[in-house]
Parts: sequence; structure tokens; C-alpha cells
Amino acid sequence: MNTETHAPALEFWFEFGSNYSYLSVMRIEAAAARQGVRVLWKPFLLGPIFRALGMDNSPFVLQKEKGAYMWQDMVRECRKYGLPWQRPSVFPRLGVLPLRVALAGEGEPWVGAFCQAVMQLNFVHDQDINSEAALAPLLEGLGLPAAEILAAAGSDAVKARLRAHTDEARARGVFGAPTFFMGEEMFWGNDRLDDALAFAAPTRP
Amino acid sequence: MNTETHAPALEFWFEFGSNYSYLSVMRIEAAAARQGVRVLWKPFLLGPIFRALGMDNSPFVLQKEKGAYMWQDMVRECRKYGLPWQRPSVFPRLGVLPLRVALAGEGEPWVGAFCQAVMQLNFVHDQDINSEAALAPLLEGLGLPAAEILAAAGSDAVKARLRAHTDEARARGVFGAPTFFMGEEMFWGNDRLDDALAFAAPTRP
Repeated sequence: MNTETHAPALEFWFEFGSNYSYLSVMRIEAAAARQGVRVLWKPFLLGPIFRALGMDNSPFVLQKEKGAYMWQDMVRECRKYGLPWQRPSVFPRLGVLPLRVALAGEGEPWVGAFCQAVMQLNFVHDQDINSEAALAPLLEGLGLPAAEILAAAGSDAVKARLRAHTDEARARGVFGAPTFFMGEEMFWGNDRLDDALAFAAPTRP
Repeated sequence: MNTETHAPALEFWFEFGSNYSYLSVMRIEAAAARQGVRVLWKPFLLGPIFRALGMDNSPFVLQKEKGAYMWQDMVRECRKYGLPWQRPSVFPRLGVLPLRVALAGEGEPWVGAFCQAVMQLNFVHDQDINSEAALAPLLEGLGLPAAEILAAAGSDAVKARLRAHTDEARARGVFGAPTFFMGEEMFWGNDRLDDALAFAAPTRP
């Protein structure tokens, strides 16, 4: 496993409300490790992106046909990747608080495990993810100081960083999640995760 | 190669103006033959589908960011599949006449080769595909009676069949191309071609 800081780094832009982000959050750490690529976790808010594109909700809500298809596709995709799945009763779930927690933990080794736990809460256990009551047990389950991390997540600095991430995503042409960047090369969708990692991977002998 | 009529059949709904349909048109016959699956070519018009969904053009034209990404993605996808590629100077190109030709040849062994030739005209040679002058040489190149086939393509019966195909696509929840059906199971996008074929394939010992 080659994850030292000089390894090439793939930016992973994701949202906790996004079902296709769920697939990538669950897959990316193992897949990246196999390729010798580091993951830079880039939480951002999809809502402002969609609004800037003229949509007041997820395209899966606004376009009935596309939404109906997506739920069928998710069942098959989860089966393909061996991931548990339950269609959430609320979609898309608000996830601004866990996005801030992920930002508060930027660069920490627990970020991936935390993001996986949040995604499972949403897409496996069909539970609210946007409260301290929901997130504290996840952090504690990872052996982390929940109160301290949640306080950091609520700071003005972290709130501003999440807004800045979202503005950066918009400026770089992101229109959905997950989105991957290696330098200026952009890859959209869980379907492109393997291609993005292959692009980012160091040349092998 | 198992393509006798009792082999399982995958419906392949496609449009000549659709760039992701280009990838599937070029790939599907060889991939289906490897899986022992027949291909049912289902030409339809995307324009009326998009209009029914409230869009007066391709989403790649209406959504600037998504369009910019798609052109970047196509370069990489064609490289991945070993397909030639030139970004068309007109997009999306009208392709109602070649769709009618493909319908006029329904069930004929030349349909796949004809569709590949039309797609190459659009996405490799950047040429008009919607005139008899453009299509006659393609048909002749396949050793076919061009005048006779073009006359059949212009018949009221074929025109009505193309409208009926488009209505059927809409009724079955199609919102883009390519789309694959095995029975009621729907797969959207060239990214799902392999999954659709695996789903359609007969169980192997």
C-alpha cells in the first residue's frame, strides 16, 4: 500500500446526499491503495451547484423517468460491488453537518472511515445524517473525541471552508457527484472511478 | 457465435445524433456475439423524448458544464475502446433518414454494419448523415441496392414505425440513449452495455 505523501493524489469531490457518491465512498480507499494513489477527500454541497445550473432539486427528483431508473440501477450496482443497500425514505438527505465534520478532519486518517459510516447511515440504515445526535456515535465508534470534532465542525472557519469548496467545485465545472480530478483532468460519476485512478496511478515498470 | 433466433435478445435503443450511442453501436455486435446474445436494433428519435421532458435540445447543449465535460470524456472513452474519434462540428446532427433506413432493414443482417458506417460518418468524418446523397454510398459500399432501400425508408409505413418506436421508448421510461432492455429490465448508457449483456446472456455451464 503506497499512500505516503509523495504518491499521486486524486481529488474526490462528493456529497453525502448523493447516491452515486455512496458507491465511490465505499470503494475508493481500497481501490486507490491498489493503484498506489492517495485520496484527497473534497466534501462539497450539491444544492448550490444544482441551483446555479437552474435546478431547485436533484435531477433524480426533477426528472421522474431518470429517478425511477436510478433506483433500479442502484440495486444492480450495489449487487455488482457487493455493497448493502436500502433505498432511503428521504432523498436527497441533507448532509451539511457531516460534510463539515469531514472538512474538520481534512488530512486525518479517519476521514474515509467516517465518510463510509455516514453513507451507510443514509443508504443502508435509512437514518438522518444531519444532526450531532446522529454523528456523535459514529465518531465515538471510531474511537474519536466526538464533542471536540463536532465543535470544530461548527466553527466559522470550517463553515467558510465548505462554502469555498462548493464555490471551487462550481468554478471548475463540477455539475454532479461524485467527481474526480487529477490536475485539470475531470472524471464524473462512480462509473469513472477506475479510469480516474488508472489516470492518476504512477507508471508501473 | 450463437446468434440463432432462439438466443436471448437484448433491445438496443439508439439515435444517430447521440455520441454515447456511437460507442455502443461500434461495440455491441462483437460484445453480444461473445455472450451468445442477439441484438434487436431499435432506432428512435431523441428529440421528441427530450421535448416531452421539457428540454428543447440535448442536455449536452443545454447544460454548458455537462457538455464541456462530455467532449473531454469522449476523447478518453474512444481511446479506451480503441475507436477513432473526431468531435463533430454540428451537434447533435439530425439523423431521421438513417434511422428510417435502419428500420427499413429491421432484422436484416446488414443493419449493424450500416449503423456503424453512419456513426463513423458523423463522429469520425464529421459529415452530414441526413441525406440520400450521404447514405447511398454507405449502402452501396455494403453491396446493397441503395435506391430500393432508400425508397422503402421513405415510405409512410416506415415513417409511422419510427414514430411508434419513439412513442414506445417514451412510454417505457427511456430518457436518453443508448438504452438497453432485456424484458422490463432497463439499462441506460454505454457504461451499462456490458452489464446489460451479462444480464441477457444465457446461463453458462
